[in-house]
Amino acid sequence: MKVDDRRRQLLDLGADLFARHAYDELSMSAIAREAGISKSLLYHYFPSKSDYFQATVAAAAEDVAARTTPDPDLPPLEALTASLDAFLAWIEENETAYRKLMQGATGAAEVRDLVAGVREETARRLLEGLSDGEPSPAVRTAVHGWLGYTDAACLDWLEHRDMDREELRNLLLGSLLGALTAAGFTPRL
Amino acid sequence: MKVDDRRRQLLDLGADLFARHAYDELSMSAIAREAGISKSLLYHYFPSKSDYFQATVAAAAEDVAARTTPDPDLPPLEALTASLDAFLAWIEENETAYRKLMQGATGAAEVRDLVAGVREETARRLLEGLSDGEPSPAVRTAVHGWLGYTDAACLDWLEHRDMDREELRNLLLGSLLGALTAAGFTPRL
Repeated sequence: MKVDDRRRQLLDLGADLFARHAYDELSMSAIAREAGISKSLLYHYFPSKSDYFQATVAAAAEDVAARTTPDPDLPPLEALTASLDAFLAWIEENETAYRKLMQGATGAAEVRDLVAGVREETARRLLEGLSDGEPSPAVRTAVHGWLGYTDAACLDWLEHRDMDREELRNLLLGSLLGALTAAGFTPRL
Repeated sequence: MKVDDRRRQLLDLGADLFARHAYDELSMSAIAREAGISKSLLYHYFPSKSDYFQATVAAAAEDVAARTTPDPDLPPLEALTASLDAFLAWIEENETAYRKLMQGATGAAEVRDLVAGVREETARRLLEGLSDGEPSPAVRTAVHGWLGYTDAACLDWLEHRDMDREELRNLLLGSLLGALTAAGFTPRL
């Protein structure tokens, strides 16, 4: 198997294993066994369990960023709607991993930094899409706040599952508009 | 010194020490030294550093809950405004501790559970204040989302400090109204 394919396959396996098991429960031996490769080959790809875990989180972060990149050819509201739909589809597919990451079940500073980095990049993209030039402090705060809103609302939704995905998406969109309005901003949608 | 007073004093000291130092940096010996008591007396109050830390977080959680309890004699919007002002004053006074807790710098499951418990209780209080009877799924999700909004917005505000406290409070209030409107709910304010 090509090196890149093998690495990709190990990252997919890791996403699944770390979602299903507590970090401390998993050993590199058990992971190698699951992957059907030798422990030394696993170490060849990832020098430690911590490196392996961080690589799976980084790959998941890249995946969600790629899938939610707004389509520049769509009008802003449609592009945002499509990004939210893609995000909600992603968290449904990766529910356990998403919950674990959001609830801070993973103490490693590197992982927290990764999650914070994804949020920062999402805020940047959103602010860029909303207006040219520097946003006001209130708009910047509202956008960061809304990302916190989105994650908290999604966790509540995953726990109860008593709305369909479209209702949740519309609630998220409407709440963003409400927050931007409260920040004195009228989006060009 | 009376047992309760001593315990209270140790909890205040702990809040300060754990805010200023990384958890792993602090030893029970160093804490006892700072408190001007013997290590065995410290252990008499708290059987381990982890117990001590959890007790300081629990005391902080009680403090914030007590200070932000809505005044039942005020109209709902005024009561909420007063609670938000009290909350923002609290996070300004306890900035480092608040940031650490929110950014999940503390991996212990007990501490995460405490923080989640405070949020759950705040959501319950808010929902109770908003309407009689069971809230709709959208309203419940919006309220949970807004608590995430509030923490994310506060962290952004603490980082930049480019709005005054009243502007932030009005943004938080306006965003809650926006989120409730998006959830199809018209609050009785």
